[in-house]
Amino acid sequence: MTERNAVPLPLQDVTPTSDALECIEAHVSAGGSYRRYRHASKALGCDMTFGIFLPPQAVDALCPVVWWLSGLTCTDENFMQKAGAHRVAAERGIILVCPDTSPRDTGIESDDDPLYLGAGAGFYLNATQAPWQAHYRMFDYVTEELPELIRQNFPVAKRCSIMGHSMGGLGALVCGLRLRDRYCAISAFAPMAHPSSAPWGQAAFSAYLGNDPTLWLDYDPCVLVQEELSPADAIPILIDQGDADPYLDEQLCAEDFRDACLSANYPLTLRYQAGYDHSYFFVASFIEEHLHHHADALSKEDDTF
Amino acid sequence: MTERNAVPLPLQDVTPTSDALECIEAHVSAGGSYRRYRHASKALGCDMTFGIFLPPQAVDALCPVVWWLSGLTCTDENFMQKAGAHRVAAERGIILVCPDTSPRDTGIESDDDPLYLGAGAGFYLNATQAPWQAHYRMFDYVTEELPELIRQNFPVAKRCSIMGHSMGGLGALVCGLRLRDRYCAISAFAPMAHPSSAPWGQAAFSAYLGNDPTLWLDYDPCVLVQEELSPADAIPILIDQGDADPYLDEQLCAEDFRDACLSANYPLTLRYQAGYDHSYFFVASFIEEHLHHHADALSKEDDTF
Repeated sequence: MTERNAVPLPLQDVTPTSDALECIEAHVSAGGSYRRYRHASKALGCDMTFGIFLPPQAVDALCPVVWWLSGLTCTDENFMQKAGAHRVAAERGIILVCPDTSPRDTGIESDDDPLYLGAGAGFYLNATQAPWQAHYRMFDYVTEELPELIRQNFPVAKRCSIMGHSMGGLGALVCGLRLRDRYCAISAFAPMAHPSSAPWGQAAFSAYLGNDPTLWLDYDPCVLVQEELSPADAIPILIDQGDADPYLDEQLCAEDFRDACLSANYPLTLRYQAGYDHSYFFVASFIEEHLHHHADALSKEDDTF
Repeated sequence: MTERNAVPLPLQDVTPTSDALECIEAHVSAGGSYRRYRHASKALGCDMTFGIFLPPQAVDALCPVVWWLSGLTCTDENFMQKAGAHRVAAERGIILVCPDTSPRDTGIESDDDPLYLGAGAGFYLNATQAPWQAHYRMFDYVTEELPELIRQNFPVAKRCSIMGHSMGGLGALVCGLRLRDRYCAISAFAPMAHPSSAPWGQAAFSAYLGNDPTLWLDYDPCVLVQEELSPADAIPILIDQGDADPYLDEQLCAEDFRDACLSANYPLTLRYQAGYDHSYFFVASFIEEHLHHHADALSKEDDTF
């Protein structure tokens, strides 16, 4: 009548080796371990929080990381709570890391900030304009500082890949296309795929990078995908886009990215999903296929630094 | 390069037939449809909100309902957002219905109410004591009024079953054990399994039902499971309980319910899950097995009213 399941928790021994990380929350989940950590970020000049899911395989093996970048107004928690990703990550032996979407409490944000600026809206770029440039350096944070912190403290393989939603889908495309030797695969849910020509992207880029659109090129997937490369350098990209997404035409512009990929002969799988909107119900509906996309690409890579 | 997936949305035609239901939110999810409705409840004397997930099979078939009852402080939304239940419900052709956890805005709740009383803490019982008795009649609401509303407005089969978490696990056990000809199966995550002997249960029962513990018997699973029945009337019960749940010993008392079932020779599957706590990460980790428990039991029943 009563069953006591085998203890799956030598993962408790998989703990950070440095004092730089403060664990603020921990849950056993899907046979693995989900935790949130706070740390002082040098790149951003403030304390930051991130979430990490360690699959059961992390007990005695190095596991590849799939990075998740969230969208406007999110924190490190939305994806981990709502996407239903732990089950598949546990199956495939994937570590998931989800950073916050911006610096917080830097003193330069205000309650009057529009949706696309300030706290919750870092756009995963390095700001160059006042008052943002001292703290808003999320590109460096998610591609350099945080990966190094993760490497130092968790059993991660060299292999990694990146995905995200909306503003985070933009971030995933930008990070992945700019650092093609770093990430094995890219995927995105309803990404802001052509920010230079969309209202929120233009407004954010103007504030963070200045009004000259030539300063925005490094953060626009439609530009980055056209940079010359050998076919061997093309990282597989999977994009799911709900066709009932209210932001599709004005802010997300999936067709522009499709045209840019076609023009550059860059391999893209863009799927329009009938009836789906911009919510986490959409993300949760297809997260399993995205994680398999990443796990399949990661399994082709070698496993050492 | 671009795929357009087949439209799965004749579900849009599966809409309420009465004006009594106001749709306040709708998302395509896992190939089905998740919606929230507001309606005026006669049993509770206030407006109520519930969530419903319709699987794709509901387009042209009657589908069984699995009821979900949530825990203290929850609304109708937590389960639908965090449990990851839509995928499996879509696979198995199950309709999920999640009521709110109490009446709201009745004027008798106060900001000083403790966790276990008032808004968010209806305990799925019919209160008999002032000031609660006029509105706090959640047993009637979840077993009579709301099922009838669902039957009138959605393509539901006669078959149904019930599950829940914490206070909602208590509710599922009470509803299932009291109405054994109604529900085909019961399951619970970390239920308040012996409320008459636990602090929150005692405090809530005293306020809602009066101080005499003999008045509480109809709402205590440890009592209800001992009511005489033929073996054919035993509804299969599955309980998962995290062994790192901070409320286990004082508030939940799984061992008391195990002992009561043993004493009554009532078939129970009680599983202690090593390392798991009381959170929705625990629920999401085992929801698939619970839904299969229900779907298997429901598939044995006939399909007509």
